[in-house]
Amino acid sequence: MDDKLMLMIPGPTPVPEQALLAMAKHPIGHRSGDFSKIMAEVTENLKWLHQTQNDVLVLTASGTGAMEAGMINFLSRGDRVLCGSNGKFGERWAEVAKAYGLEVDVISAEWGTPLDTEKFREKLEADTKKEIRAVILTHSETSTGVLNDLETINRYVKAHGEALIMVDAVTSLGAVNIPIDEWGLDVVASGSQKAYMIPPGLGFVSVSAKAWEAYKTSDLPRYYLDLGPYRKSAAKDTTPFTPPVNLFFALQATLRMMKAEGLEQIFERHQRLTKISRAAMKGLNLPLLAPDDATSTAVTAVRPPEAVDAEKVRSVVKKQFDIALAGGQDHLKGKIFRIGHLGFVSDRDILTAISAIEVALRELGYEGFTPGAGMAAATRVLAES
Amino acid sequence: MDDKLMLMIPGPTPVPEQALLAMAKHPIGHRSGDFSKIMAEVTENLKWLHQTQNDVLVLTASGTGAMEAGMINFLSRGDRVLCGSNGKFGERWAEVAKAYGLEVDVISAEWGTPLDTEKFREKLEADTKKEIRAVILTHSETSTGVLNDLETINRYVKAHGEALIMVDAVTSLGAVNIPIDEWGLDVVASGSQKAYMIPPGLGFVSVSAKAWEAYKTSDLPRYYLDLGPYRKSAAKDTTPFTPPVNLFFALQATLRMMKAEGLEQIFERHQRLTKISRAAMKGLNLPLLAPDDATSTAVTAVRPPEAVDAEKVRSVVKKQFDIALAGGQDHLKGKIFRIGHLGFVSDRDILTAISAIEVALRELGYEGFTPGAGMAAATRVLAES
Repeated sequence: MDDKLMLMIPGPTPVPEQALLAMAKHPIGHRSGDFSKIMAEVTENLKWLHQTQNDVLVLTASGTGAMEAGMINFLSRGDRVLCGSNGKFGERWAEVAKAYGLEVDVISAEWGTPLDTEKFREKLEADTKKEIRAVILTHSETSTGVLNDLETINRYVKAHGEALIMVDAVTSLGAVNIPIDEWGLDVVASGSQKAYMIPPGLGFVSVSAKAWEAYKTSDLPRYYLDLGPYRKSAAKDTTPFTPPVNLFFALQATLRMMKAEGLEQIFERHQRLTKISRAAMKGLNLPLLAPDDATSTAVTAVRPPEAVDAEKVRSVVKKQFDIALAGGQDHLKGKIFRIGHLGFVSDRDILTAISAIEVALRELGYEGFTPGAGMAAATRVLAES
Repeated sequence: MDDKLMLMIPGPTPVPEQALLAMAKHPIGHRSGDFSKIMAEVTENLKWLHQTQNDVLVLTASGTGAMEAGMINFLSRGDRVLCGSNGKFGERWAEVAKAYGLEVDVISAEWGTPLDTEKFREKLEADTKKEIRAVILTHSETSTGVLNDLETINRYVKAHGEALIMVDAVTSLGAVNIPIDEWGLDVVASGSQKAYMIPPGLGFVSVSAKAWEAYKTSDLPRYYLDLGPYRKSAAKDTTPFTPPVNLFFALQATLRMMKAEGLEQIFERHQRLTKISRAAMKGLNLPLLAPDDATSTAVTAVRPPEAVDAEKVRSVVKKQFDIALAGGQDHLKGKIFRIGHLGFVSDRDILTAISAIEVALRELGYEGFTPGAGMAAATRVLAES
């Protein structure tokens, strides 16, 4: 049976019909009054979603492009930065920093383990000369399902006083509480194909007044990713370069949906989906990669015992039920599978995925669980929530 | 009457229904076999459209992002470049070059006048030390409707022997013949919302073997716009960063349409639309900005006499007929209007636009033409073609 794919990966995430239909409208001119109206509404709603009065700028780029822009606009050649690295994306930001000639101090942890906040405290406290210009970290590490303790690390950055904090919130913004203004987060980057519930193609960067101060002296070369013109244009409800107008149609629709659902409700739903997902996998006696106290609400990474081939689980689930689960990246390839529960995902969807995984495990001959144990665990979480 | 907008601007251009409907499909995973199949087909058809065996890489970016990538991957700090500038986009590439610390030698011409090819010849011939690393120019200058003589300038670049040629073909690729391999063009950049007939969001860069040689020693910082990883990924039918999968659905559809129409037929259609458009404006005694021997096939810029307010023409055409024409940019704002005839535009569409412009001129009290003269001129062109 064709055309019945169900996406349970941490991006692209499922897109609601009203966003798909909005996207299918004929494009309009991006220099028109009609587009400016959309831009104005979208910008206001993005600030609501980001819990901030800071600028939230929209780029035609992937999340990586947005995060790179968030880094290179506020730093200068030779600047010292602290980079948290405990997964594919943390590693990436260290690479970006190096590509621009920054002096990178990497604080790393095993993939699947959260960053040690104490190491950040020590480095920042030791920096009495205030040479560290920025602390860069991934909040929700999509590659492992680990949520790093942004709140604590940010507290140490604030105690340092000088350094900017730059956050990859690609799979956490809109899925877990990130009160940007309350915490004073300087740069927060995210991408459209995640909690925003629209297809990939847009990147978002929120920028604080303190970061804009640093912008004035930043000397890294850039043009397309120069956020200054984006800021100027956004103030006039327009963009410096031609924006993907159809993705804006979709974004307008989903931001309205998000406002209607409510921020707290969205966060609760993601928490609940995560709990269900984790409880069910434990019920099936499948070990989880991320610990209970550091779990992303976007994705659950499962590391089956040796006897079970993670790729085969994905393959059966895909072939028999047309559900796409994510695999492992880099050295975790073939060793884990990841259940995405980010964005337009309901309780019904997560039950569906759990059922399919249970069937697949049986078909692959794995008998290390009581039949129905996954669903039983899920039911308990739902009863308690 | 709502919802009946007709786009006659040089981008975003109109999008065929089959592309809109393809775009409205649920996204799929970008690391799936299904996406790789699309990527493989799209890459092959892009090479066909570019008339090249070179790599044609796809970025999530506007045309500016694609052109910037095309420049910064093959040059190094302090490199001397020649930049043609006779409109908004030519000016932009000089700005990009300066932002990256290149030594920029600008060859400029008035907006509305083509670049003087002799100036390129002189500079290139005088460069006996072979210090000029690249010649950068805009082929179709969208801001004025001028087509620069790429073929001749490229001949001088080839005679120089060392310099790369980097072409902004954003509104010419797919609208006029650019035989990349035959001419030996090193870098050719373009954007999806133009002749490609899909919405904005994708940028394209074709890269020659000679440019890849220069890549090896290029030292300009970049990450998201680093074309090396795009090339590596494309060879495996994938992308280094999450691509806008829905725009790829649309691109797959329009590239098939373009192949079915045929390259020569597409070029002929654009030539015909340009001729009709220019003849009609002349019939209405409206001066054209670009000379007859240097006309873009994407857009016709019209500079009405003092008595006629260009913005009012646009306004009446928009309000009464819901046709979007483009205005002037920068110092030409308010002084010209531009008729886009790029991409998914038929003979019927151009007749419609001409009729609407004639009515608008009458309503604005301009009587400097015989009623029906625009259509009469258009009819003559069609009869002769």
